[in-house]
Amino acid sequence: MGIIKKDYKNVHPVVVPTVNGKKPKCVLLYSGGLDTSTILKWLILKGYEVVTITADVGQQYDDLDKVKAKALKTGATQAYVVDLKQEFVDDYVFQLLKTGTKYENKYLLGCSPARAIISKYAVEVAKKENCKYVAHGCTAKGNDTTRFMVNCKSLDPEIQMIVPWGDHEFVSFFEGRMDLLKFAEAHGIEVDHTTAKSYSTDDNLSYLSSEAGMLEQIENETPDHVFKLVPQPYMKNVANKPEYLTIQFKAGIPVKVDLLGEKFGKPVKTITGSLAIMGALNTIGQKHAIGNTDIVETRVNGLKNHGVYQNPGAAIIYAAHDDMQDICLDKEVLKLQYHLSTELSYIVYEGFWYSAEFGAIRAFFDYSQSFVNGEVTVKLYKGNVFPVARSSATNSLYDEQIVSMNVIGGFDVADTAGYQKIRSIRIINWNKVNKHLHNKSVIKKTSAKK
Amino acid sequence: MGIIKKDYKNVHPVVVPTVNGKKPKCVLLYSGGLDTSTILKWLILKGYEVVTITADVGQQYDDLDKVKAKALKTGATQAYVVDLKQEFVDDYVFQLLKTGTKYENKYLLGCSPARAIISKYAVEVAKKENCKYVAHGCTAKGNDTTRFMVNCKSLDPEIQMIVPWGDHEFVSFFEGRMDLLKFAEAHGIEVDHTTAKSYSTDDNLSYLSSEAGMLEQIENETPDHVFKLVPQPYMKNVANKPEYLTIQFKAGIPVKVDLLGEKFGKPVKTITGSLAIMGALNTIGQKHAIGNTDIVETRVNGLKNHGVYQNPGAAIIYAAHDDMQDICLDKEVLKLQYHLSTELSYIVYEGFWYSAEFGAIRAFFDYSQSFVNGEVTVKLYKGNVFPVARSSATNSLYDEQIVSMNVIGGFDVADTAGYQKIRSIRIINWNKVNKHLHNKSVIKKTSAKK
Amino acid sequence: MGIIKKDYKNVHPVVVPTVNGKKPKCVLLYSGGLDTSTILKWLILKGYEVVTITADVGQQYDDLDKVKAKALKTGATQAYVVDLKQEFVDDYVFQLLKTGTKYENKYLLGCSPARAIISKYAVEVAKKENCKYVAHGCTAKGNDTTRFMVNCKSLDPEIQMIVPWGDHEFVSFFEGRMDLLKFAEAHGIEVDHTTAKSYSTDDNLSYLSSEAGMLEQIENETPDHVFKLVPQPYMKNVANKPEYLTIQFKAGIPVKVDLLGEKFGKPVKTITGSLAIMGALNTIGQKHAIGNTDIVETRVNGLKNHGVYQNPGAAIIYAAHDDMQDICLDKEVLKLQYHLSTELSYIVYEGFWYSAEFGAIRAFFDYSQSFVNGEVTVKLYKGNVFPVARSSATNSLYDEQIVSMNVIGGFDVADTAGYQKIRSIRIINWNKVNKHLHNKSVIKKTSAKK
Amino acid sequence: MGIIKKDYKNVHPVVVPTVNGKKPKCVLLYSGGLDTSTILKWLILKGYEVVTITADVGQQYDDLDKVKAKALKTGATQAYVVDLKQEFVDDYVFQLLKTGTKYENKYLLGCSPARAIISKYAVEVAKKENCKYVAHGCTAKGNDTTRFMVNCKSLDPEIQMIVPWGDHEFVSFFEGRMDLLKFAEAHGIEVDHTTAKSYSTDDNLSYLSSEAGMLEQIENETPDHVFKLVPQPYMKNVANKPEYLTIQFKAGIPVKVDLLGEKFGKPVKTITGSLAIMGALNTIGQKHAIGNTDIVETRVNGLKNHGVYQNPGAAIIYAAHDDMQDICLDKEVLKLQYHLSTELSYIVYEGFWYSAEFGAIRAFFDYSQSFVNGEVTVKLYKGNVFPVARSSATNSLYDEQIVSMNVIGGFDVADTAGYQKIRSIRIINWNKVNKHLHNKSVIKKTSAKK
Repeated sequence: MGIIKKDYKNVHPVVVPTVNGKKPKCVLLYSGGLDTSTILKWLILKGYEVVTITADVGQQYDDLDKVKAKALKTGATQAYVVDLKQEFVDDYVFQLLKTGTKYENKYLLGCSPARAIISKYAVEVAKKENCKYVAHGCTAKGNDTTRFMVNCKSLDPEIQMIVPWGDHEFVSFFEGRMDLLKFAEAHGIEVDHTTAKSYSTDDNLSYLSSEAGMLEQIENETPDHVFKLVPQPYMKNVANKPEYLTIQFKAGIPVKVDLLGEKFGKPVKTITGSLAIMGALNTIGQKHAIGNTDIVETRVNGLKNHGVYQNPGAAIIYAAHDDMQDICLDKEVLKLQYHLSTELSYIVYEGFWYSAEFGAIRAFFDYSQSFVNGEVTVKLYKGNVFPVARSSATNSLYDEQIVSMNVIGGFDVADTAGYQKIRSIRIINWNKVNKHLHNKSVIKKTSAKK
Repeated sequence: MGIIKKDYKNVHPVVVPTVNGKKPKCVLLYSGGLDTSTILKWLILKGYEVVTITADVGQQYDDLDKVKAKALKTGATQAYVVDLKQEFVDDYVFQLLKTGTKYENKYLLGCSPARAIISKYAVEVAKKENCKYVAHGCTAKGNDTTRFMVNCKSLDPEIQMIVPWGDHEFVSFFEGRMDLLKFAEAHGIEVDHTTAKSYSTDDNLSYLSSEAGMLEQIENETPDHVFKLVPQPYMKNVANKPEYLTIQFKAGIPVKVDLLGEKFGKPVKTITGSLAIMGALNTIGQKHAIGNTDIVETRVNGLKNHGVYQNPGAAIIYAAHDDMQDICLDKEVLKLQYHLSTELSYIVYEGFWYSAEFGAIRAFFDYSQSFVNGEVTVKLYKGNVFPVARSSATNSLYDEQIVSMNVIGGFDVADTAGYQKIRSIRIINWNKVNKHLHNKSVIKKTSAKK
Repeated sequence: MGIIKKDYKNVHPVVVPTVNGKKPKCVLLYSGGLDTSTILKWLILKGYEVVTITADVGQQYDDLDKVKAKALKTGATQAYVVDLKQEFVDDYVFQLLKTGTKYENKYLLGCSPARAIISKYAVEVAKKENCKYVAHGCTAKGNDTTRFMVNCKSLDPEIQMIVPWGDHEFVSFFEGRMDLLKFAEAHGIEVDHTTAKSYSTDDNLSYLSSEAGMLEQIENETPDHVFKLVPQPYMKNVANKPEYLTIQFKAGIPVKVDLLGEKFGKPVKTITGSLAIMGALNTIGQKHAIGNTDIVETRVNGLKNHGVYQNPGAAIIYAAHDDMQDICLDKEVLKLQYHLSTELSYIVYEGFWYSAEFGAIRAFFDYSQSFVNGEVTVKLYKGNVFPVARSSATNSLYDEQIVSMNVIGGFDVADTAGYQKIRSIRIINWNKVNKHLHNKSVIKKTSAKK
Repeated sequence: MGIIKKDYKNVHPVVVPTVNGKKPKCVLLYSGGLDTSTILKWLILKGYEVVTITADVGQQYDDLDKVKAKALKTGATQAYVVDLKQEFVDDYVFQLLKTGTKYENKYLLGCSPARAIISKYAVEVAKKENCKYVAHGCTAKGNDTTRFMVNCKSLDPEIQMIVPWGDHEFVSFFEGRMDLLKFAEAHGIEVDHTTAKSYSTDDNLSYLSSEAGMLEQIENETPDHVFKLVPQPYMKNVANKPEYLTIQFKAGIPVKVDLLGEKFGKPVKTITGSLAIMGALNTIGQKHAIGNTDIVETRVNGLKNHGVYQNPGAAIIYAAHDDMQDICLDKEVLKLQYHLSTELSYIVYEGFWYSAEFGAIRAFFDYSQSFVNGEVTVKLYKGNVFPVARSSATNSLYDEQIVSMNVIGGFDVADTAGYQKIRSIRIINWNKVNKHLHNKSVIKKTSAKK
């Protein structure tokens, strides 16, 4: 567009054809922010009838009523606001936590499950409103555009995605934030200037992420002010005393939390109900600076990206669950789970929530986690979650009698020799045949000195 | 042995036959403690000539000279003391850390690599001394007896292991610690009563472990005094300010550490050399309460066991290395590494250090880690290791230009749509064919409310 | 025993103590052959009351009534003969075939599932007969002794195994086959000399194995006469014309077989019912020389062993099922299945049929295979099973319209470019950074000549 | 283009801009066929200077000189013909065979390695000719377009791909084969009408593939005439007697083939040299109908596709190598190899030959296969490859002495009991705790009948 002065008021994008004399209808995933408000207006200019959806997945919105009002004021013919929190925590967040899945070894996936449930709802509204387009405000470089596409198409192959940030017409007009602001001004779209930040965030009941902008310099330390949801452990608002709580698991899912008195004391408060548990653990996690992950990860498209993730409650559940399953599950089951959760991390991150592969992996975990029942007590302190005690009335594989070093017994000590000898057969054989190796790669050099 | 009063002085175990008129010779892995001193004497009573070996793998011994003297005094005909620290850190500890291997998701293997190098040396001494027996003092229920057997037999199939704690004759005489003490007294074996503990420990330059005894009650919190090497973060001797340091990696191995001035300041001290690096990181890790792992794990024999592991330096290296490779390695390489390090954790834990499978996995990592070069700065504070900055002059896959959300460019935004559409083909197809699923398992229920 | 002449009549093994004045009772897995008949007598001499069990898993027995009579005549106080064929084919053979599991890339596990079901029954009879010992005639070097131990102990930890071939007293008396024959003669045990072979066999409704004896020379070709169940394809009794049949699968399980007329003709015969299907496919497989596998495999104990396996019906089902799932299952599901069936092959081979890990893997396959429904037509000819046609009314992911090279359409051809470009990002990045590689390992040398 | 009559002579596609007054130069992968000849002319019409490359990877071309002449006649300014056969067999075909990789359990990848080496050469010529475009004639729905893109971009990120069949301008003019023919006629491009087939083929020294056209009906049997390279075993030109040959492997690579006299006779002919070996095995494989695979596979883009693959020599090598490694490699190494070759099949199929992940996997196999040395004798007969004998002077893990069922010895039979008991610990524990399972899922029902 170069030096030509843009006329933000009189914009004339190529208009889409009507269908049987009617404007094509489009569902827009609407946050109320500058991007999606601009897109809402743009879609109208392009000739769409626009219905907005705003999903409440626990993000810390100011006011969903205002978002709805803004949508309608900007030109939406319908503005859905839907509370998905209960379903989100039950069918997405806790189901994923029970698999112990972390992306690239560190990140407790907070965003992609939200994209999955929002897609489901978008497809549902599209069906109800009889429209075949779903639009969103995600950038072409990020993960969410792919997740929305894959998730929506999984649920309804007929859905067509409208992706302004992936569309030449749109991006050649909106070359930067300034264009968005001027367009908004020209079209009477209210802009909340207080939300302007030097980086982007996204949140829901399980996490807050920050990325882009100033965070793109990976050789600089992330400033403390970015740690908005969960403070860094050395910050002032962090508690100075360890705190204990006990989480009860049923089939791998947290079903009860007891906050304990000082120093592993008696329960002082009991929380049940998945949403209440998530909320309570988020609160106590924040208090103890739990759940900050500041990493460079690989995006769906293969680009390396810097992200700061904060998930206080999820981090506590992860640690407690990991400890719980260590006494309830056999070593071979744990090993298979590690492999499958590595696989699952990519499946979920890349947007294949409604895939056959997740279905099958889920079946695996539904079986294995059916044995994960009991209680774990954790101690929280300045960024640390320490499991300190665990028990399972029904599924503990820990057997103090047999394992004890003090008790001679449990099994015949001489069995061990037979075990070791048979176990050594294959390696003896291999090393006997390939003896020369020991002077080379496997054992590099001899450094024994007398 | 029941009510019969044992005569600890005049013990007459079944004597082994001489070979060509000479006593069979045995190499004993000797620590100088009560168990191995008792065994040393016992083996002599059984008719062996005993040569002891004591390996220095960095354990915090009082005095290796004293150990040697005690061995000779107790009847060993030779007492080898050997310094394996340099080889241990280079060929075992750092090689393992570069693979990112944790056992059962949490434990940075500290013990089994030491067993591997000690076995190597034991076999070497056995060869030199022309003897075919290797004895040790490990219990039949633990891991080390299996590790020593497998490792020694790997290196020399002719070696025969003598395992008193797996031998009926021995265990029916020594039914408990009291028998050991009385036997020692009767045979003039000096006992260091200050080392009597209510649990067992093992250590080397990469870790300290504690298990057994009072630690066998897994529903009780581990007392603070067990955290001997590394304090818990709320303990008094822990630093109150974050500290920064930069680790430089070459091919996945730490080669330089710079301690930085306050708040990500300039380098104030530089450490090079693997042993010095390990030592410095251990010291600073202890200061910041880094590297405590208190878990229930599965032993080689399948029993669940409670262990407390402390590895301050290794934990810092692990975190920094993990961050380093996130910018140097492609997503697909990282994924394969996760799978292989899961496999490797079992291989190493179970004593197959000198196996073909480790050789092949090592070749994989030698290749992949050849790309892991650069520097990571970490911030240490009360149990936390936070990577805060990273760079690689030669291998960084991070490309701020392309990834940036601010820069429209790097690639054509419209490419993303094609990518997503092609990627969705298989899932569209699958979900179209198996449409009924969406009303069942994959999406459980619809809870959208307007 | 050296030069001392053995008295086969008057054998006096150490007698086991009575319990409350009664002989301890033992369940013996009894085949009626020389080994188990000898053991039956031996156990009686040792002071056991012996109850025998003979399981019919489809082996081609002469006469189970005779086996029963022989057991009673030799001294058993009870002789159970049980028909497990239906349960075996339904819950073991077909369940395993649906997972596509082959051991070491080639062997369709025929033996270990039979050991699992027999163990189950042995434990059941032991419970019913109120005895805690289970004995068998398997050698200490083979797989079955481990499988019986693990399976029986899985089902009832209180069961004690009696393993004569792993017992010093027994093996030092019975040093070879000659001792067995003389003992049998001395004790009036009838020996079927026609069954004396230069190698061992085992069979059931899914397979016949041959190993040991003359088969231990792995540098010699297996003689044709060993291929007893299934001829080699060049042998005379093999059909000279291709034959077609269609197998219908429901949830991965064969439920109907149609034998077709010549050259992919109309159905001429229909078989339903799992046992009838297995029988018919075995018969037709034999006719066409299908299902011979002659391999060196690794035993449970790590030893390499030569085995000849013949499983005509299973081989046909495997090939048809493999083809069936190629149109019913998504690529990512297939990939996960390959990994899990590799794992499962070891689990099943090593005797962990009743393990948590199999339970979880089974749940995975129960889910994934629920989509495997349809028909596959195979053509059989001289050792070959060629799938030639396949269809699925409900689950086919094959879409001729979209895939067709003739049809321009199905998707926008330009999408492919976007797909490829985004997909290339990570490898472009990696190769750009590590450019030097192309002159070294990845591309070795340039050989382009004009 | 609808009803408008196309003028095939006077075509005026949008012309690309010149650079510094010169036409942009493009390298075209040229086969001499109708598609690439049309594209050659089309690119010239679009304003490119075109240089063609024709790679000889062993395809059964009529005459490469003619292809070159045709390129020049059609307007290419340079026509490279390059013989890549030696490098292809050494660095691609044999390297892949040593990993035992099959795509989707059946297909010995024949095409993608050829695409890799051709890409390498294309990039080299592009560099030499100083041009940044590479064009090819692959369709947008197939695999090769992706493979060329990924491989070329791996080797030179600056390369831009020109993909006419993925370009709207091109595909809207050339709507079907008729348009190609008419265009060719109008521009004097010679068409070899004898090559017109009802399906597509591709070949090189390791394989011939057939797909598309009439083969798209997957419920119809593939007609015999499609099996052009390798007959079906019931066809007339197939040998009627088994034939034996011995392959010698060094580090997993075939280095010598001995054709043997009748019935495992003496060597009658010896072949060395990789190209000669590949050629000889192809010839003998064809004679015995070896190496036909007729499958539905999943393409890179997720579509299911029907392909017929014929690779006589590769199939023989695969079977022999698989047998060879069974005696040279330890069970745990084999298992890891199975997993990694499953991964590798996707990596190679999808075009990531020059990736870091292949580099690392290659390092793994270079290590593991260094132990695969020896000879395997196979018997060929009507579609079957039967390994019948194997030996390794340096690396055989097979130990007849120890494994023998006839020899009491090798190890203490009582060791087995200890082995089994320790091995059972975890499953005993798990089943004890979760006892209820046995009445449910793991063991479904009791069917024991007396």
